[in-house]
Amino acid sequence: MNYSIIIYIIGWILNLQAAFMTLPAFVGIIYHEKAGFAFLASIAICLIIGIPLIRRKPSDGVFHTKEGYVTVALSWITLSITGAIPFLLSRSIKDPVDALFETVSGFTTTGASILADVEVLPHCVLFWRSFTHWIGGMGVLVFMLCLLPLTGGYHMNLMKAESPGPSVSRLVPKVQSTAKILYSIYISLTFLQIMFLLIGKMPVFDAVCTAFGTAGTGGFGIKNDSIAGYSTYIQNVITVFMILFGINFNVYFLLLTKKYMQALKNEEVHCYLGIIAGSVTIIAFNIRNICGSMGKAFQQAAFQVGSIITTTGFSTTDFNQWPVVSRTILFMLMFIGACAGSTGGGIKVSRLVILCKTVRKELHLYLHPNAVKKIKMDGKTIPHETVRSTNIFLVVYVLIFAISVLLIGFDNFDLTTNFTAVAATFNNIGPGLELVGPTHNFGFFSHLSKCVLIFDMLAGRLEIFPLLLLFVRDTWKKF
Amino acid sequence: MNYSIIIYIIGWILNLQAAFMTLPAFVGIIYHEKAGFAFLASIAICLIIGIPLIRRKPSDGVFHTKEGYVTVALSWITLSITGAIPFLLSRSIKDPVDALFETVSGFTTTGASILADVEVLPHCVLFWRSFTHWIGGMGVLVFMLCLLPLTGGYHMNLMKAESPGPSVSRLVPKVQSTAKILYSIYISLTFLQIMFLLIGKMPVFDAVCTAFGTAGTGGFGIKNDSIAGYSTYIQNVITVFMILFGINFNVYFLLLTKKYMQALKNEEVHCYLGIIAGSVTIIAFNIRNICGSMGKAFQQAAFQVGSIITTTGFSTTDFNQWPVVSRTILFMLMFIGACAGSTGGGIKVSRLVILCKTVRKELHLYLHPNAVKKIKMDGKTIPHETVRSTNIFLVVYVLIFAISVLLIGFDNFDLTTNFTAVAATFNNIGPGLELVGPTHNFGFFSHLSKCVLIFDMLAGRLEIFPLLLLFVRDTWKKF
Repeated sequence: MNYSIIIYIIGWILNLQAAFMTLPAFVGIIYHEKAGFAFLASIAICLIIGIPLIRRKPSDGVFHTKEGYVTVALSWITLSITGAIPFLLSRSIKDPVDALFETVSGFTTTGASILADVEVLPHCVLFWRSFTHWIGGMGVLVFMLCLLPLTGGYHMNLMKAESPGPSVSRLVPKVQSTAKILYSIYISLTFLQIMFLLIGKMPVFDAVCTAFGTAGTGGFGIKNDSIAGYSTYIQNVITVFMILFGINFNVYFLLLTKKYMQALKNEEVHCYLGIIAGSVTIIAFNIRNICGSMGKAFQQAAFQVGSIITTTGFSTTDFNQWPVVSRTILFMLMFIGACAGSTGGGIKVSRLVILCKTVRKELHLYLHPNAVKKIKMDGKTIPHETVRSTNIFLVVYVLIFAISVLLIGFDNFDLTTNFTAVAATFNNIGPGLELVGPTHNFGFFSHLSKCVLIFDMLAGRLEIFPLLLLFVRDTWKKF
Repeated sequence: MNYSIIIYIIGWILNLQAAFMTLPAFVGIIYHEKAGFAFLASIAICLIIGIPLIRRKPSDGVFHTKEGYVTVALSWITLSITGAIPFLLSRSIKDPVDALFETVSGFTTTGASILADVEVLPHCVLFWRSFTHWIGGMGVLVFMLCLLPLTGGYHMNLMKAESPGPSVSRLVPKVQSTAKILYSIYISLTFLQIMFLLIGKMPVFDAVCTAFGTAGTGGFGIKNDSIAGYSTYIQNVITVFMILFGINFNVYFLLLTKKYMQALKNEEVHCYLGIIAGSVTIIAFNIRNICGSMGKAFQQAAFQVGSIITTTGFSTTDFNQWPVVSRTILFMLMFIGACAGSTGGGIKVSRLVILCKTVRKELHLYLHPNAVKKIKMDGKTIPHETVRSTNIFLVVYVLIFAISVLLIGFDNFDLTTNFTAVAATFNNIGPGLELVGPTHNFGFFSHLSKCVLIFDMLAGRLEIFPLLLLFVRDTWKKF
């Protein structure tokens, strides 16, 4: 294990965190809020630890797979702990575990909150909550790769470990350029959404925070009723952008480079849009009596489906009151999640496609035992390693899910609450059903349960393996 | 596809079914029940179709994988349909779908019933319900292989398709001898249990039916309160035998052939017993206040854990009233299931062991990308095909599970009911939680839901692939 490079990167993460916090500090100044000082103090803390760590450049700059995964896991833990400091210093959240829960929920773009009333929070704290979504959405190490001219190579291992999906392809040969392209698309789409929201007469502060929440597919609202209080136009703008941010960013790059045919042929996106269309239709028919009209039913169904499949978690209505078929569909969408290479969470549509194809291949093998059949996607053969690790992903996903539900069970709430609480955090969605439904929050859980859910949120965002590696003794051997 | 051999085997299955039905007909004579005639009529129906089908011996007696799977699937469907006839003719069950549900539940050793009151049924019908468990437990094709001197070879493919678990090994070189050994052990253990039950002063009829239900890990009771009304001694005998029937029968063969070391070293059995011990301990502590004393809590916990992990489904108490931790553990045991090569259902402990080992291997690969690591069990390397098909088993298991829950959702019952109804049938257990808890039954579901659950029971017993192959067009091509 190459410790020096890991320490160096974590130093940079701390300095970046300080830079990120200047924005909420600035918001605090605009609104003349005392809580702004909490951010200034937090900046100081980050810099005091961060600057010494980057003083010594590591002699060996090579990232092997192992270092990539461990660095990403430790970076996210650092980010979460330091990100919680402003909540505590500003007395917005008094309990350290709660503050950590809220911060992890922000960075992992989960959007599950322990706060019953968010409207009492100062603007700068609300801004920070939403801004963590935006940073976590595309990834902090990807952001660092944009800025930091790392030498040594293999930085792709960093990006691979942080980016969601079964396989990560670089858009252009240089990793740094890939990172820059991704962030340019991300920033442009975010600006576009802010524009559209402002056209709908949303206040600037609301528009910026909501766009952050949408872009990162996070879901922290700045109102207690999430998005329900805004106009239908604004709700529809959010619906469209949630779905857009759930699409693989490679597709946007292909569109920008005028490879239209290639972009339109993307199997994962077809599947993703197909699932959305199917779910919206079934749910709309299922809830048409509740909503009064078919049009309203479609609008509400589209918002909720978009919010859940992209794992954003905004809500306009208490879908916990919907009929059981609609709730079952939403529950399943929680697991499917968005496209790989998007800001969304969940298992990812491409994994689902690969898994379905392996089943088809297995059936084919029963019929033609000697046939050689490769699994293809977008016309290209998927490497055996990707297929294998996708299968194993599902296994470890199910195992962690089961253990989490069991541990939370000790709080003695009902089974649906426990199940959906884990589903909502592990898939980085936010609200679940019953006691953790859209009109409730996670504040009532015990400290143990909150810690389990914090682990689940991080594991979900980093797709399990980086975090698991931290618990393997072999990882820490120095060779 | 070699149609002639499939038709020939199905003919034999029908004749065997007629032979099986002579037993309940005989019970009907003993108790002077009119319902006995229903069995005589059913025997006639089976023979009228069955005898012509075996008149022409197929010229080509070779079983390829495909034929093996399709034969097994079609045999079980035939068995289920003809097995339902006595229920209808005796007017014990009036609805054909209900009768099919009850029969499939019997043969697949699920034990989920649509009947609210079983004590009103005639003895011969009760006997038939329990006897279907016994036949289905070890498998009807395995039974046929004992009797029928098939020529052509590859009969292992028949046994593979019917026997549960990721891989099936023949105990001795000849398939027929393997089948005979398995049934000898099965019959001996069943007799042993009847003896122990009789010692506890259980009536003969009750002892025989209960032993059938235990041996097949089925769970149909002949009393409305399942096993709750019997003495603690009888409950404990059943607990022990449920756990014994959940053990891989290979282990018994090793013990019989005095290979004690090999038998004791079986990883799957260690794991199986470990899970039972752990679950019983946690649940006993969790329910000690409900049960009054620690001893009673242990006894109840052991019975329920044994009943659920072996997928038997007998009950002595309404565990739906237990605290949520206990219910969560039972819910998880539903999925784990018994050992491969036993009469139990579920995912199987050996699959779980293989899956956990693949995860460990994957983590190892992240640390040592160039290392070659094989997955071993009981000291032997597991073939790559077994690992792959185990992974894929989990995938298709999750997919079918999700679709089933969704389809049942249209009945608009609560999520826990729907989830556990599918879990209880797909894993061949019997009772679930909430509306399908141990004190309820499946009668209230719609016809559509019942059909879904019938599919799940068959898919669960045959481990999915044989049944899925029936829906692939390629299967039916004639070459």
